[in-house]
Amino acid sequence: MTRDELDTPVPIVRLDIVEDNLARMQAYCDRHGLRLRPHIKTHKVIALAKRQMELGAVGITCQKLGEAEVMADAGVDDILLSYPLIGKIKAQRLAALARRIKLTVAVDSENGISTIAEAARLARAPIDVLVEFESGGERTGVQTPAEAVAMAKAIRLVELLRFKGLMTYPISPKTAPFVRETRTLLEREGIELEIVSGGGTPGAYSAHAVENLTELRVGTYIYNDRTIVGLTSEPQESCALRVLATVVSRPTEDRAIIDAGSKTLSSDLVPATVGSGYGLIEEYPCATIVRLNEEHGIVDLSRSERKPKIGERLTIVPNHVCVVSNLHDEIYVTENGAEFTPWSVAARGATT
Amino acid sequence: MTRDELDTPVPIVRLDIVEDNLARMQAYCDRHGLRLRPHIKTHKVIALAKRQMELGAVGITCQKLGEAEVMADAGVDDILLSYPLIGKIKAQRLAALARRIKLTVAVDSENGISTIAEAARLARAPIDVLVEFESGGERTGVQTPAEAVAMAKAIRLVELLRFKGLMTYPISPKTAPFVRETRTLLEREGIELEIVSGGGTPGAYSAHAVENLTELRVGTYIYNDRTIVGLTSEPQESCALRVLATVVSRPTEDRAIIDAGSKTLSSDLVPATVGSGYGLIEEYPCATIVRLNEEHGIVDLSRSERKPKIGERLTIVPNHVCVVSNLHDEIYVTENGAEFTPWSVAARGATT
Repeated sequence: MTRDELDTPVPIVRLDIVEDNLARMQAYCDRHGLRLRPHIKTHKVIALAKRQMELGAVGITCQKLGEAEVMADAGVDDILLSYPLIGKIKAQRLAALARRIKLTVAVDSENGISTIAEAARLARAPIDVLVEFESGGERTGVQTPAEAVAMAKAIRLVELLRFKGLMTYPISPKTAPFVRETRTLLEREGIELEIVSGGGTPGAYSAHAVENLTELRVGTYIYNDRTIVGLTSEPQESCALRVLATVVSRPTEDRAIIDAGSKTLSSDLVPATVGSGYGLIEEYPCATIVRLNEEHGIVDLSRSERKPKIGERLTIVPNHVCVVSNLHDEIYVTENGAEFTPWSVAARGATT
Repeated sequence: MTRDELDTPVPIVRLDIVEDNLARMQAYCDRHGLRLRPHIKTHKVIALAKRQMELGAVGITCQKLGEAEVMADAGVDDILLSYPLIGKIKAQRLAALARRIKLTVAVDSENGISTIAEAARLARAPIDVLVEFESGGERTGVQTPAEAVAMAKAIRLVELLRFKGLMTYPISPKTAPFVRETRTLLEREGIELEIVSGGGTPGAYSAHAVENLTELRVGTYIYNDRTIVGLTSEPQESCALRVLATVVSRPTEDRAIIDAGSKTLSSDLVPATVGSGYGLIEEYPCATIVRLNEEHGIVDLSRSERKPKIGERLTIVPNHVCVVSNLHDEIYVTENGAEFTPWSVAARGATT
């Protein structure tokens, strides 16, 4: 299909930019002896996960069991589940995975250890375990090195569970001191710290400076987005996914309506330091997507000298690309901008 | 499946509440001689669209051609497309629909008229047309009665297009004066105003007071949500869809993490007058979902005396139910709360 033949709104992906983003991150990790374990929650596309593995990733990261099931079905055989799994249903699904691939699971509670233990018991297969700690993200993770050590000891008491190390998100100035202190405490107990896994695209290219870090989990870097461009030195040209949208109404001189609303772009904003609005319109950088309804993007043209016409197609760099690809069953990929092919976002809808 | 057998996060729907919401709105419309044309963008479920028709709806409303295609395939034969359709690809798809069902299409530009005209020509079938006007929503729609009349005259010049009336969203104090003035101008031209269609659940039960209104388009009323409860006299018990989520981490005394993030609840907020946070936790009404990551709901418990435990299941009334059901391939419906059945959100993913 040519670009003109694509119906809108639709996410389009430049594979040459994807390839460059993947190669740069892999080269960075190789140069610094970091194991790269890409997070597939950003793209949820089988071919892209396989490409990440081909380029040198040690395995992939998934948030959801459903994502891991799709990727395991496709032949990916080394998966880190970086999300707390709790309860019998998760244990059963985890067991089914543990029977067929190499699994590592993050944990931050006793209840979490019980869930993984039940899975390993059901599967009669070993499961590697990382203790998640908090280093500024204020979401999951144990709060102190002492808690991390207590968890490590508890994990080591369970048959088939293998304590492997620590995991955190994002990487922050708190990361290295936490790891250092935990390492010292673990050494006193004679427990080895094999893996220290840090996550997040914004801080990725500084990961080598974090003492003791062995593994990098990044998702957004494959596509990049407006947030990453605003927070890092990545240029706008490094954004691989754009939403192709059409101007469907021009009710006033200063207002355009595009067919990309919150069901296409999501309602995610960028940090205030990065900008305003719900995405960047490349052809009209002075226009602002000021408001979204489900299928309407309301564009303020008052600061844009040029004004788009009805029927004009615009390309939008999304604020947060992970939630955009999650809204679409397919992306349309292109090598050269001339020919577009639909690829299934296979793990979209893997909500559990 | 019992509730305990459901994996989380998952949208669960009480069909008895759905039935009550549908029946009340239909009775209201019947009482006041309004034609009810429910908007299926909220639920996107075939069985629910059919139930709306059974109860007395004159047809359904869709935003997207893709939604209309799914519903036409399922046997719904009278559809209003309330969204501006622009360009050749839309014209071709519209033509395919016009060949098999009764279609009405809204329009607010000459380019839009051309698109509908091309569809009618390709289909060799008539298409009814409504002119969309703006009555405070500041998105699509012509701005003045004179523009509306000019559009009506332009539509009447096109073979196979039948001007039927006006459409607006939302209903506001500007609606009635705009319609009155347009009606007067149309009468001078000898043009009949058959349909005046107004939309939006918040103002639905006042629609009878809007002079000249003949048709009501409402979507959210089938499920209701936190926004509707906050803006209208609908009680929280009228909310039919809830998200069942699990507490997966309790890293600190005042923080819980639930497995419903922006990929489950969306990032839509409620108006500041209604409340704060990303959804209402029924079991802990004093807790606030202060932040969402993709798969993490970060809950502040500092104002909640009782604190949930890891593994506890919570039900969340979403801020904006239309974007929540759009994130899930299936909802789990129940008549009595004991037994749950998966229903396909068949028109989810109908982005174009």
